[in-house]
Amino acid sequence: MKIVIVGSCGKLGSQVKNLAIKKHEIFSVDLNSNEYKNLSEINSKVDLIIDTSSHEQSVNSTIYAYKHNIPIVIACTGHTKNEMLEIKSYSKFIPIFIAYNMSYAIQLFKKIVHYLAKNFDCDAHLHEIHHKAKKDSPSGTAKEIEQIFKKERKFLSISSVRAGNIVGEHELTFFSNDETIKISHTAQSRIAFANGILKASEFIINKKPGLYNMENLVQDKI
Amino acid sequence: MKIVIVGSCGKLGSQVKNLAIKKHEIFSVDLNSNEYKNLSEINSKVDLIIDTSSHEQSVNSTIYAYKHNIPIVIACTGHTKNEMLEIKSYSKFIPIFIAYNMSYAIQLFKKIVHYLAKNFDCDAHLHEIHHKAKKDSPSGTAKEIEQIFKKERKFLSISSVRAGNIVGEHELTFFSNDETIKISHTAQSRIAFANGILKASEFIINKKPGLYNMENLVQDKI
Amino acid sequence: MKIVIVGSCGKLGSQVKNLAIKKHEIFSVDLNSNEYKNLSEINSKVDLIIDTSSHEQSVNSTIYAYKHNIPIVIACTGHTKNEMLEIKSYSKFIPIFIAYNMSYAIQLFKKIVHYLAKNFDCDAHLHEIHHKAKKDSPSGTAKEIEQIFKKERKFLSISSVRAGNIVGEHELTFFSNDETIKISHTAQSRIAFANGILKASEFIINKKPGLYNMENLVQDKI
Amino acid sequence: MKIVIVGSCGKLGSQVKNLAIKKHEIFSVDLNSNEYKNLSEINSKVDLIIDTSSHEQSVNSTIYAYKHNIPIVIACTGHTKNEMLEIKSYSKFIPIFIAYNMSYAIQLFKKIVHYLAKNFDCDAHLHEIHHKAKKDSPSGTAKEIEQIFKKERKFLSISSVRAGNIVGEHELTFFSNDETIKISHTAQSRIAFANGILKASEFIINKKPGLYNMENLVQDKI
Repeated sequence: MKIVIVGSCGKLGSQVKNLAIKKHEIFSVDLNSNEYKNLSEINSKVDLIIDTSSHEQSVNSTIYAYKHNIPIVIACTGHTKNEMLEIKSYSKFIPIFIAYNMSYAIQLFKKIVHYLAKNFDCDAHLHEIHHKAKKDSPSGTAKEIEQIFKKERKFLSISSVRAGNIVGEHELTFFSNDETIKISHTAQSRIAFANGILKASEFIINKKPGLYNMENLVQDKI
Repeated sequence: MKIVIVGSCGKLGSQVKNLAIKKHEIFSVDLNSNEYKNLSEINSKVDLIIDTSSHEQSVNSTIYAYKHNIPIVIACTGHTKNEMLEIKSYSKFIPIFIAYNMSYAIQLFKKIVHYLAKNFDCDAHLHEIHHKAKKDSPSGTAKEIEQIFKKERKFLSISSVRAGNIVGEHELTFFSNDETIKISHTAQSRIAFANGILKASEFIINKKPGLYNMENLVQDKI
Repeated sequence: MKIVIVGSCGKLGSQVKNLAIKKHEIFSVDLNSNEYKNLSEINSKVDLIIDTSSHEQSVNSTIYAYKHNIPIVIACTGHTKNEMLEIKSYSKFIPIFIAYNMSYAIQLFKKIVHYLAKNFDCDAHLHEIHHKAKKDSPSGTAKEIEQIFKKERKFLSISSVRAGNIVGEHELTFFSNDETIKISHTAQSRIAFANGILKASEFIINKKPGLYNMENLVQDKI
Repeated sequence: MKIVIVGSCGKLGSQVKNLAIKKHEIFSVDLNSNEYKNLSEINSKVDLIIDTSSHEQSVNSTIYAYKHNIPIVIACTGHTKNEMLEIKSYSKFIPIFIAYNMSYAIQLFKKIVHYLAKNFDCDAHLHEIHHKAKKDSPSGTAKEIEQIFKKERKFLSISSVRAGNIVGEHELTFFSNDETIKISHTAQSRIAFANGILKASEFIINKKPGLYNMENLVQDKI
């Protein structure tokens, strides 16, 4: 299909472009792009917009998507409440996918975490490792996993390591009497996130108007 | 509750007894037992029979369970077709639990294997390790996992190691583009199997007549 | 060879006996033994004493070993300074092996820890897991590993988990730029400790008088 | 120091440049470079040459290094016997480092493999994982590890997995009675190899004339 990538020269945008270009026709929009500086310069009818630029710009991209009646995948963070309300208002007319945590596998991972937290009554420990530059600890995903346990009224102990260049590892172990189940997710590079965005794109292309996220993507497949 | 353990002096039976005795009143039946040599010697009304002895004896135990209208957990293997037909015939009148693979966690494990095999399109490899005395390779559980993949029309590669004293490890890895999910089950001792039998006992105690197995036990909880 | 096991009915002593009996002739000494209640009852000339009983008794066993000019392996802890001085005094005449940490593999493990701590300049993290009943945290072995890093003027971060029935796991990871080395030791059962004692026994049998420990055992082999 | 990188626009050369430029002054030599097309264009006195281009070119670079009396690190493969003989002949006059397997950590890894293969008598298994595009199986490193075991007259079983995008994982497990030691090396990206080349550069800069390799680099530090 014909896909516009807004923010195509950024860290994430360029990886999305590299991946998408193998299967799709890509229109690069970026102030630093030598294709298009702005969405308004595109004359063709396109099938989808992916915005990896910034929360401010993503609102403009959503308006553009609404005017041309095409779905949009928003893969940037930091939206204000007002920006989010504005984006939501357009979701009555077009399908909008908000992809905060863009790894597809981490969604599957959270599903099996939930299943085990519910059905396996025993001690549980989460060990997560990220690169030294990461400031928050435990990680956002670790906090989400902790919430899954809290909803089941169970306790999860967590240890966090900040070391080396590790992109992201989450290892959850269930210690029953004399047997253990260990599940782990490892992101080897940021390409995992670009892949998630492409999966989101393929998911949303034929959907009805509405607001979608990574959880819908996975729920749809069970 | 009052539980009869038939085969209480065997390898598995004695471990079941050791665990069960903490919560329940146990009646030991075994030719080597100094309590009861035979089921017929028991005078009290009991709540449940667990048979860990042999496929031949388990048919007799089932008849006893039928006559006294109590549930039975059969935790031995090798039944002939005729023995199994006879056992099944009594399941119209009493709840009968057949526990071939007695680890509870391995049932949970197979559930998440199935979920990932279905939803995670990527290369998958199973690495399983057992003690050197184990003759079959790949393990029975490995073959079951392979079947799960076949039903989803997906390929699973398998490597088997026979080394040291390892009770049993199954490690399944899904290799997606730049991210991996690894799930593993480790049995640390045969007590895991005794635990599974006790879970089966608690599950079956109030069930309607019928034939149950470990899969029912887990399905019941989702 | 002919081996006396003092404390042969204890938790560790009985496991040592079970293992040793496959290769050696065993004399069981224990107040609960139906062989010998006391060392003095033994008439045969024996080749080695293993004492797994208590720090008080191990002094008596050492005196017996001295009088009969045979080597002794002491595999119990908690000796007072005076007891230790007395034991040492006999090491001028007979070989005495003091086995505090009785796993052989953990000695090898500490050797490679030392090698990597010295040669691999990068972030390091130790993750250790033990059963819930274990009171001290981090484990004694974790503290020894920390000391190895301190001697190299390097920092080691540690996380400790107390969960399930885990006998003991130590996993040490070195996080370099874009590559990692992970080394782990897992004790699957207390038999590992019994094995270490047997290795110590075979090591000491032909040694000169002196005081030996697990470190000597390993150093001897490099 | 002043470092010339020959082949600075190649896959490996550009990564070496990116890393080296943080600490050193770099002269880029490459047919595609907009700095220097050829070594002969450089006028300054430099401290070191790193050649990541090709076996043919590396001979020319070695002659240049000899004429200017500077050390050289050769980080390309495929040399013919004659090329290697020619390179060796210059090692009487200048220090030459041949870096075939450029990861520093894998050298440390092989050291501890050797130590354990020698000292830990038990079953051993190597499980190695690489991306699907890798043609050889088992990997070159796996074969080197197998040789280490053969020299100790011990058997190593090996399983190889070719899946996903995995840069390279080697996991070696020693299965003793009731305890295991597991050691693993994981390369997260090719930057690991660039790092090894820089370590080689710092190692060779003050060495006497001679032929060096990654093994020397590590041996030097023990």
